[in-house]
Amino acid sequence: MSQIKQVAIVGGNHGNELTGVHLVKKFQQYPNLINRESFETLPLLGNLKAIEEGKRYIDKDLNRCFTNQGLQNPQLSSYEDTRAKAIQQILQPQNQPFVDVIVDLHSTTANMGLSLIFCDMHPLLLRLGAHLSSINPMVKVFVNQQSREGGFLRSLCELGFVIEVGAVAQNILNAELFQETEQLIYAVLDYFEGYNQGNISQINSTLTLYQYIGSIDYPRSDSGEIQAMIHPQLQFKDYEPLNPGEPMFLTFEGKDIFYEGESTVYPIFINEAAYYEKGIAMYLSQKQEEVV
Amino acid sequence: MSQIKQVAIVGGNHGNELTGVHLVKKFQQYPNLINRESFETLPLLGNLKAIEEGKRYIDKDLNRCFTNQGLQNPQLSSYEDTRAKAIQQILQPQNQPFVDVIVDLHSTTANMGLSLIFCDMHPLLLRLGAHLSSINPMVKVFVNQQSREGGFLRSLCELGFVIEVGAVAQNILNAELFQETEQLIYAVLDYFEGYNQGNISQINSTLTLYQYIGSIDYPRSDSGEIQAMIHPQLQFKDYEPLNPGEPMFLTFEGKDIFYEGESTVYPIFINEAAYYEKGIAMYLSQKQEEVV
Repeated sequence: MSQIKQVAIVGGNHGNELTGVHLVKKFQQYPNLINRESFETLPLLGNLKAIEEGKRYIDKDLNRCFTNQGLQNPQLSSYEDTRAKAIQQILQPQNQPFVDVIVDLHSTTANMGLSLIFCDMHPLLLRLGAHLSSINPMVKVFVNQQSREGGFLRSLCELGFVIEVGAVAQNILNAELFQETEQLIYAVLDYFEGYNQGNISQINSTLTLYQYIGSIDYPRSDSGEIQAMIHPQLQFKDYEPLNPGEPMFLTFEGKDIFYEGESTVYPIFINEAAYYEKGIAMYLSQKQEEVV
Repeated sequence: MSQIKQVAIVGGNHGNELTGVHLVKKFQQYPNLINRESFETLPLLGNLKAIEEGKRYIDKDLNRCFTNQGLQNPQLSSYEDTRAKAIQQILQPQNQPFVDVIVDLHSTTANMGLSLIFCDMHPLLLRLGAHLSSINPMVKVFVNQQSREGGFLRSLCELGFVIEVGAVAQNILNAELFQETEQLIYAVLDYFEGYNQGNISQINSTLTLYQYIGSIDYPRSDSGEIQAMIHPQLQFKDYEPLNPGEPMFLTFEGKDIFYEGESTVYPIFINEAAYYEKGIAMYLSQKQEEVV
């Protein structure tokens, strides 16, 4: 990768995730906070109408609209389809240099701390992850290689990734997480500045990362109603080991449901509010060490 | 007060507060859990359409629609106005005995534990509060005497009150709070059963309660945008003392804003998601001991 010339920071890709919305508004007001000597940074609000209404989305999840097929289909005209095309025009303008990095700010009701979500094992992103987790133990790195095709905003460029912070409820601000996210963004920008200036460490280091394996839905009735809740022993235990035979769910009648897999997994996005409708109670990941 | 003949338990007065919704569904499935020898209990879902859509409300807050004026006004025809009239017909049917007790189940993103919210200092409710807080220290009693006129569902009957549990995000279930709320409901019903049977203690006891003083909004710009967040030192500190000169808010620029009142207050509903639009960052209350 040659020099990084332009970075975009997106908030409010989901309109009810206020941390990103207010950080981007702050950066729009004080651009000096995010510009660096060797590159410019564009702060951008994602789903404008959903931000206005305090909802995740209006018609459909904006952060599933960035497929090549969808972006090229003039028939798709919902608010989010239209907004996705407009965002693509901003980040990938025709006949002009594209944005090199997209930092997409999200929050979650799961206890994800400060998570970085990558679509692949890009060496520069892995080194960034190793650097950030070395300076802040709340930083975790999750890699979901299947998400390249999922229509996520971050997939618009090679160095696109998500900062996912939690636990925080939808439509509220948690000042502590706001400030931690802000500091993390500055550390990201400083890292790219160092990269441009040839100032980043070339010494190998070890990164702990979590690779996507699959997702688990809530137990449901034939009509699709959930019949159990995340088990109290698993609630807020994102990135902690779940062993075969340990409880995952608690039914409304008070019965434990156990994890029946064959090996230890690391659940994340446990009890994310927006995933009930997507049929996801949690993602499962495997933990691995990577020399980067 | 003579015998209690009928109790109603309402869940989903706000459609995105899932604890009450799923408790009421459970009670509808297993009515024996909530019926007692001396009375019957009616489990009722509040805002059906909002529950379906996972929203607090469709057109307006159902839990502000129970004013006499509103209920008697045939011009009012929004979904919630119509639903409020239907609920009134169920709980106060013409020419039939009214429901004697309404237990209205709510949840909040504020750290309210298991709060009982009363409209007034009804002696039976205060004794109930003293009993419940003596068996579970998570139980707190908040009295908002101004709320009698606010159009709240609980104001439909003399012994109407709210169970408000938190902290829990909107649109998720927290299994621990679900089970604690369930046990609290059984304790309420058992108390009324004891009351009907003349089996409740007549010995005076002391109840700690919190009386509504007023509410505080977020600092806002001229255009109404919030300019600060709940201060990290105040976040999740519901029912704890806030003294003059202690921090309340943190601006997006990182500046502390202090509480400038003249005496110690006890903030509650700190950072409730649904209150951003109502101009309420928190309620202030004063703590008092009452012999009941």
